[in-house]
Amino acid sequence: MRADNDVAGASLILKPALDRISTEIDRQFDLLLKVPKDPRGPLYEAMRHAAIGGGKRLRPLLTVATAELFNVDRDRALRVATAIECIHVYSLIHDDLPAMDDDDLRRGKPTVHKAFDEATAILAGDSLHAMAFEILADEATSPDPFVRAELMLELARASGPSGMAGGQMMDLAAEHHVFDLPTVTRLQQLKTGALIAVSVEAGAILGRIQPEGRTALRGYARDIGLAFQIADDIIDEEGDEVLAGKALHKDAKAGKATFVSLLGIERARDQAAALVEQAVSHLHGYGREADVLRAVARYVIERDR
Amino acid sequence: MRADNDVAGASLILKPALDRISTEIDRQFDLLLKVPKDPRGPLYEAMRHAAIGGGKRLRPLLTVATAELFNVDRDRALRVATAIECIHVYSLIHDDLPAMDDDDLRRGKPTVHKAFDEATAILAGDSLHAMAFEILADEATSPDPFVRAELMLELARASGPSGMAGGQMMDLAAEHHVFDLPTVTRLQQLKTGALIAVSVEAGAILGRIQPEGRTALRGYARDIGLAFQIADDIIDEEGDEVLAGKALHKDAKAGKATFVSLLGIERARDQAAALVEQAVSHLHGYGREADVLRAVARYVIERDR
Repeated sequence: MRADNDVAGASLILKPALDRISTEIDRQFDLLLKVPKDPRGPLYEAMRHAAIGGGKRLRPLLTVATAELFNVDRDRALRVATAIECIHVYSLIHDDLPAMDDDDLRRGKPTVHKAFDEATAILAGDSLHAMAFEILADEATSPDPFVRAELMLELARASGPSGMAGGQMMDLAAEHHVFDLPTVTRLQQLKTGALIAVSVEAGAILGRIQPEGRTALRGYARDIGLAFQIADDIIDEEGDEVLAGKALHKDAKAGKATFVSLLGIERARDQAAALVEQAVSHLHGYGREADVLRAVARYVIERDR
Repeated sequence: MRADNDVAGASLILKPALDRISTEIDRQFDLLLKVPKDPRGPLYEAMRHAAIGGGKRLRPLLTVATAELFNVDRDRALRVATAIECIHVYSLIHDDLPAMDDDDLRRGKPTVHKAFDEATAILAGDSLHAMAFEILADEATSPDPFVRAELMLELARASGPSGMAGGQMMDLAAEHHVFDLPTVTRLQQLKTGALIAVSVEAGAILGRIQPEGRTALRGYARDIGLAFQIADDIIDEEGDEVLAGKALHKDAKAGKATFVSLLGIERARDQAAALVEQAVSHLHGYGREADVLRAVARYVIERDR
């Protein structure tokens, strides 16, 4: 009964939080991406197509919910959340390209290179990438330039070759090599874990928490990042393409090692659940103000896509 | 005779400055891009292929030469110059992709997607893009976080949809529209002018010159940026592919309006020369310490590629 109550409690907290952040992030992108009346119009249309009206906005919620622990002004937290979502959306656009994962569908809509063309998709990704740093560098994000510089450093590291882009490169290599569990774990820590970690950490940076005060939050972020990826592998194995809004069963077709292929579906499920409990335990020092973060942790393995 | 002496004088100053900056930037990239012994190896190899041992390093020279006007520590100026060159190199990698300009040759070598593959080229560009901001955000670039934040803001603006990426989008549209001279000028100001401008401005930011003190340098940068692009159009029209190290005559084949097609070759040449004189005149407030910048201005229309 306890577990059922937890899940019900989580969705009571989580649903409004997800709805609110989705509306807020859509509005931020709408304001940022006004379509100019010049030949750059389709570039902005493509960015809007990818950025507005889709996605769970989990990363922005992590940033805003963490910032809330430290009473950070919500508008500043939203700016940082939008910057991180710019990086996430750019990575999806480039990932979907024919030379990469070659996907036609994303969030239930045609991918950017399908709705527009490949060149526009490449430039839309590059533009969102630059905009992330433009948002963070602006003093509206924080009047303290140390805070801005630290946010930019962490986001650049999380998205570059020693983070997300490096993980994507390992993922490409996974088609030609049989990776073991430690290598798949490392791949996923870089590919998705680094950006999830910076989403949490950014909230603490905005709250002026020094690195030594972020240990518990880092542990939380690492655990939910890994749980999220294991859940993703389970969805890829047995999910519903309509619910997921994207093609599934791609890893198996490509012959890639995944948590499911390495652990089997039952052990993968157990492992994800254990990581979620561990993530929640990292938050023991926080009270009710961390309930959204606890709900997010449980949600990453409950979501249907 | 005066003009001949100027050119001879310029090359006496310019040649050693270009040689020195080329060596320095190659060394910076060599240190930054150590190839890891893991599946990300080819990503770093691809970045090295594109970043090391090629290019004129004009943008880095502009940053370092401008920083020298204000007695900025050369190592800091070099870091910023390397960050800007990261953006330039990433843009070349993505520009050369089959979906964009579809070039096989760059700086006399196979383009990244030819030497590696398209997916690696996309990720190598994305990685250099992130690294630019990682370099700028690091306190080794400047102990003053205001300086770091301003550098990042200017570079993000210059490279994003209201700068370089926006210019590239206009360039794609130029294949389907006949642009007039103001539109081609605007296209080029975004596509190449913005990054050249930030290369100069970054030296002044490092020198803690406030925006109102940068007017002359901004004028200089705007004029050489435009002269550079007119010269590029002239080279595309009548240059030598072996000297240029890349395919030429592409604009005419694509039916794109250029400064040469709009002005004719003689007026284009005159216009470029007038811009160079105007650029030099912006530097009248500086003494011999600005001779490298004067030499660069003359060089942009003398270079053979």
